[in-house]
Amino acid sequence: MSGNTIGNVFRVTTWGESHGGAIGAVIDGCPPGLGLSEQHIQAALDRRKPGVGAFATPRQETDRIEILSGVFEGRTTGTPIALLIRNRDANSGAYDGLRNIFRPGHGDYTYFKKYGLRDHRGGGRASGRETAARVAAGAVAALVTAAAGIDVLAYTIALGGVSISESGTTVNRESLANPLCCPDQEAARRMTGRLEEARNAGDSLGGIVGIVVRGCPAGLGEPVFDKMDAQLAGALMSIGTVKGVEIGAGFAVAGMKGSESNDPLSPGGFLANASGGILAGITNGEQINMRVACKPIPSISRSQKTVDREGNPVTLSIGGRHDVCVIPRIIPVCEAMVQIVLADFLLRQKAVTL
Amino acid sequence: MSGNTIGNVFRVTTWGESHGGAIGAVIDGCPPGLGLSEQHIQAALDRRKPGVGAFATPRQETDRIEILSGVFEGRTTGTPIALLIRNRDANSGAYDGLRNIFRPGHGDYTYFKKYGLRDHRGGGRASGRETAARVAAGAVAALVTAAAGIDVLAYTIALGGVSISESGTTVNRESLANPLCCPDQEAARRMTGRLEEARNAGDSLGGIVGIVVRGCPAGLGEPVFDKMDAQLAGALMSIGTVKGVEIGAGFAVAGMKGSESNDPLSPGGFLANASGGILAGITNGEQINMRVACKPIPSISRSQKTVDREGNPVTLSIGGRHDVCVIPRIIPVCEAMVQIVLADFLLRQKAVTL
Amino acid sequence: MSGNTIGNVFRVTTWGESHGGAIGAVIDGCPPGLGLSEQHIQAALDRRKPGVGAFATPRQETDRIEILSGVFEGRTTGTPIALLIRNRDANSGAYDGLRNIFRPGHGDYTYFKKYGLRDHRGGGRASGRETAARVAAGAVAALVTAAAGIDVLAYTIALGGVSISESGTTVNRESLANPLCCPDQEAARRMTGRLEEARNAGDSLGGIVGIVVRGCPAGLGEPVFDKMDAQLAGALMSIGTVKGVEIGAGFAVAGMKGSESNDPLSPGGFLANASGGILAGITNGEQINMRVACKPIPSISRSQKTVDREGNPVTLSIGGRHDVCVIPRIIPVCEAMVQIVLADFLLRQKAVTL
Amino acid sequence: MSGNTIGNVFRVTTWGESHGGAIGAVIDGCPPGLGLSEQHIQAALDRRKPGVGAFATPRQETDRIEILSGVFEGRTTGTPIALLIRNRDANSGAYDGLRNIFRPGHGDYTYFKKYGLRDHRGGGRASGRETAARVAAGAVAALVTAAAGIDVLAYTIALGGVSISESGTTVNRESLANPLCCPDQEAARRMTGRLEEARNAGDSLGGIVGIVVRGCPAGLGEPVFDKMDAQLAGALMSIGTVKGVEIGAGFAVAGMKGSESNDPLSPGGFLANASGGILAGITNGEQINMRVACKPIPSISRSQKTVDREGNPVTLSIGGRHDVCVIPRIIPVCEAMVQIVLADFLLRQKAVTL
Repeated sequence: MSGNTIGNVFRVTTWGESHGGAIGAVIDGCPPGLGLSEQHIQAALDRRKPGVGAFATPRQETDRIEILSGVFEGRTTGTPIALLIRNRDANSGAYDGLRNIFRPGHGDYTYFKKYGLRDHRGGGRASGRETAARVAAGAVAALVTAAAGIDVLAYTIALGGVSISESGTTVNRESLANPLCCPDQEAARRMTGRLEEARNAGDSLGGIVGIVVRGCPAGLGEPVFDKMDAQLAGALMSIGTVKGVEIGAGFAVAGMKGSESNDPLSPGGFLANASGGILAGITNGEQINMRVACKPIPSISRSQKTVDREGNPVTLSIGGRHDVCVIPRIIPVCEAMVQIVLADFLLRQKAVTL
Repeated sequence: MSGNTIGNVFRVTTWGESHGGAIGAVIDGCPPGLGLSEQHIQAALDRRKPGVGAFATPRQETDRIEILSGVFEGRTTGTPIALLIRNRDANSGAYDGLRNIFRPGHGDYTYFKKYGLRDHRGGGRASGRETAARVAAGAVAALVTAAAGIDVLAYTIALGGVSISESGTTVNRESLANPLCCPDQEAARRMTGRLEEARNAGDSLGGIVGIVVRGCPAGLGEPVFDKMDAQLAGALMSIGTVKGVEIGAGFAVAGMKGSESNDPLSPGGFLANASGGILAGITNGEQINMRVACKPIPSISRSQKTVDREGNPVTLSIGGRHDVCVIPRIIPVCEAMVQIVLADFLLRQKAVTL
Repeated sequence: MSGNTIGNVFRVTTWGESHGGAIGAVIDGCPPGLGLSEQHIQAALDRRKPGVGAFATPRQETDRIEILSGVFEGRTTGTPIALLIRNRDANSGAYDGLRNIFRPGHGDYTYFKKYGLRDHRGGGRASGRETAARVAAGAVAALVTAAAGIDVLAYTIALGGVSISESGTTVNRESLANPLCCPDQEAARRMTGRLEEARNAGDSLGGIVGIVVRGCPAGLGEPVFDKMDAQLAGALMSIGTVKGVEIGAGFAVAGMKGSESNDPLSPGGFLANASGGILAGITNGEQINMRVACKPIPSISRSQKTVDREGNPVTLSIGGRHDVCVIPRIIPVCEAMVQIVLADFLLRQKAVTL
Repeated sequence: MSGNTIGNVFRVTTWGESHGGAIGAVIDGCPPGLGLSEQHIQAALDRRKPGVGAFATPRQETDRIEILSGVFEGRTTGTPIALLIRNRDANSGAYDGLRNIFRPGHGDYTYFKKYGLRDHRGGGRASGRETAARVAAGAVAALVTAAAGIDVLAYTIALGGVSISESGTTVNRESLANPLCCPDQEAARRMTGRLEEARNAGDSLGGIVGIVVRGCPAGLGEPVFDKMDAQLAGALMSIGTVKGVEIGAGFAVAGMKGSESNDPLSPGGFLANASGGILAGITNGEQINMRVACKPIPSISRSQKTVDREGNPVTLSIGGRHDVCVIPRIIPVCEAMVQIVLADFLLRQKAVTL
């Protein structure tokens, strides 16, 4: 049993390797009658494309989406929606030297250990390129969540050791309309400086992405294993770069007292939101807040120690086209995973009228 | 579709309410031929029982396990294993006053919103009592992981604002053989002080649990959605108390450079372990390290603001029998969830000989 | 991955061996708010109990149902419903002589081949006794289908070579209120004669069960693999005794022309029903008709050739308590499987208001 | 939750409409290291293509398979295999007149009832064209079953009321190497006559397909719901044309005695095979025999009564390109479904070395 499908009712299966013929997704369980066009998905894909700012890979991923099934005369039919993105501009030859070498921080070693063979070109299936298929599927999921009045926004909280000032910072589409999707423009300026330094040093940087979900109705989530927070955490941790997930107060709860972490209720609603909008795995109608920790991009030009398939030591410096930081390109991916999880729960619980 | 089942090949379904007739689990997919007795499961359950230390609920959960199927003459048969724990000593009457009141920090409000009715006695299905069924199932999973040479240990990293000193602290069964399962005895002493203070204040405390997995072979995990870290994060976040999950360096990766977070490889193996033993969702043979943030127990005797079903304001002080901190009782639950996830992957990938 | 769960949204997991401590079922996904009592389930179980007529096993399966979870104050809560039936009056010692012998027509040989060991007492997990758990779960499913106005009836079409006259025979609860659930009383009389002959000869008989579903709305079924007919066929074939399933005209379609098998439509509805109420895997609102072929009960006292575990030839005559024919006891089991499949589709497609 | 995926470990998802951009399949769970080429799949597809004999649709379905992922340097990688078949030569305009009319015997009415809208062109998702994707996936499954020494053969048992003589008829690739895949050449000659008559009459014919599985090891199947026979029956019944499924003696068991239907065992193996190679849902090592009833193709040029979307009566005569009988084109589809089910069980139970 493989694990390339997510969701129970709104089911997304992605497929494809970085330098194969194409990548894509099949969505099974999308309700009929939704207006859906290639332009709608393309707009989501374009948010993920490189070249936003100076610190993105110069590889031109044109990423043209093609809808092959499940849409008829501009509306979904209820049958599987097949999405296709042809791979272009993929310089496979650049990876010839890496055929037998395990790049540190990548899946090269573990894929080899698991499968016994691997498509080494550009990370193959483990490439971040796979997330384009997630973003495409997320754009379809967003049709479902939008119908329920839900809005999902991801943004930059920290990058290269610089954090935003959370107090006094407003998170909305206007405040995020900058190359780093960062609601604190002063912090963004310093993050940009760190990116320049890292690029000059042949290194890469990590960061933290925040995600807010607004307008989510109370009652979503399925105890006890398919809790809303459990499904969100699993979905977000399935993004290659993510090494930690927090909901609400997150790790800060460890230092709180019950009298601090319990959100009191008043006739007008909750008076606090340490829970991050989820209680006992079910949404309570408040804003859902999450944070995910993103590791630095493992492809760096600085010299690294590693081994080849035979276990011989190798000193590696990775050239080629690579981002310096997964932020901001990971932001639409985080949003897509949350959209998919929410759409799945909305449909699973019949909590949306379409 | 409900969500009371976890696992793909080793499938665990739990059922039962805090004050119903019984709680239990059905395990489908356990291989035949494993030696299994009620005593083995009972020993695991006893680790979770209250009364370990002075800060646990005085409710005597005798928790006698009964194996009803799937075992014949001391060996598993490959058919479903039904586990039963009768509820005893459950003072349901004590909850009469809470029938229409939503306790802050509990699932009362969200269960009502989701289901429209609820078993209010002791939290019903949302009670921590449900985790006893997880521990029982985890004891069966441990037969599978042990056969693969895997050892899982959870322990206290922080409690009530006191953290252990990680450097120089050894984590093993000996160092954890104390009421708080804390490998740093000096820190444990101060944690105990915090527990006393909180109890006296009618309050409760949060903390952090660490989990280490040793002896796990390389190659476990299923990209791209069922990655090992994604499944572990989802399983751990499905524990009611958990608000954050970290793998390896966790949130610290946000401040690292790629040259720091990439674990170099040498002919003798990995030279660092920022990845926490998981690369691209697949184990690399190194120790798996995780941390989970546990919120304070929501039942406190301090006065709290809330509302009743009709939305009227209520001032609530919860009496009765409650732990001050979910630690250390949550520790065997964390281990159980990890055991279940690992057993599932071992069987899914045929990576264990039984 | 084991296979003891059926259903996607209304999920039924059965467990238990013929002579273990108990058998039971867990239902996950039952909607909240349905009135459910042990008496309701008991009534369904009593229809399956032996002693209906002279040709049933004298073993007194008292089969007292116990609801352990998921029901609070007479209503389902939306959480898992655990059902328990203790095994009583199970004379395990009677099976001692069969510990190492493979009974022809039973699962003894194949269970041994699959699992390497088996609970030989009364067929263990492969015993027809497991179907009691299905009937109990079916009684819960029937709450869902009844709310949609659906009525499911199974009845005897053939037994021991005697068939009912289908023309002029009305199938309803009144016409089936006889020991063989046979709508043709004259055929029933002759079937009874065949049962007497077979019992005297130490032999057993097969038969055909018909199933009609009335009141099923149009639009149920999920193409392309989870078609209504595919799910019904799989569910019915999962009953140990069943060797064939037909929908609508069934095998008779092989000799038809398209002009005969196409059901014409008129403004007043379909003018024929060769399709058996299912077109392209989706219900069309007409009556669903099915037939299943049931093999003779394999336990017979007549002498049979077989082998033991070591492959030595054995001549076997099975004594003890056995039915002569699986009909009529299988009738509530067939109904239960259909109820479970229909409840699952109703909930999956939100096609019922509860 | 939709139903376009089959299998538990070897999972096949098909997508696509008859006259959309393309049809295809994604296979998740195929083991790594298997030699796989487009030619191998193309050969299977070519067996399904029309134009075999005079009674097939003149539409030229060129059906060129494209492997888009999961294969690297001629070997499967263990990642999802995406298969694509572009739709060509699809005369959509021919269906304009049917946009609002429900063709008898087709899914037009039920798709409209279920989804509220539909792609009317050529049956859309309900078209038999979808089975091309099944055949392509079956060709991949066949790599797994072949490695286990399993051979699957489907053939014509009856067509248009003419049946083969089963005694004295040998079923193998040689005897089936004729346009009707019929092992009885004399019967085939008469079937051909029936086809001519039906075509001249503007009508269509039904038939029966037999399937034999040879070389299947004992021990495959998962009680109690995922029995081998249950999974096979469900998979075969998911083919649009199938209205009945029999295993082994099938409906004939209804007239047998236990002494006849129990297959005796001897030191040399089973002495009969009324069970069709499956006991208690698990294979016993004997040949698996199945028969499926196929209804006549519903598209006929003879005049039929039906209604349009508004319920007005319509007299319909379907012109255009249609087969007279689904046999023999359905034969590779039946084989594919059996291959997929067997591959799934082999991998699920680790019963094959690859």
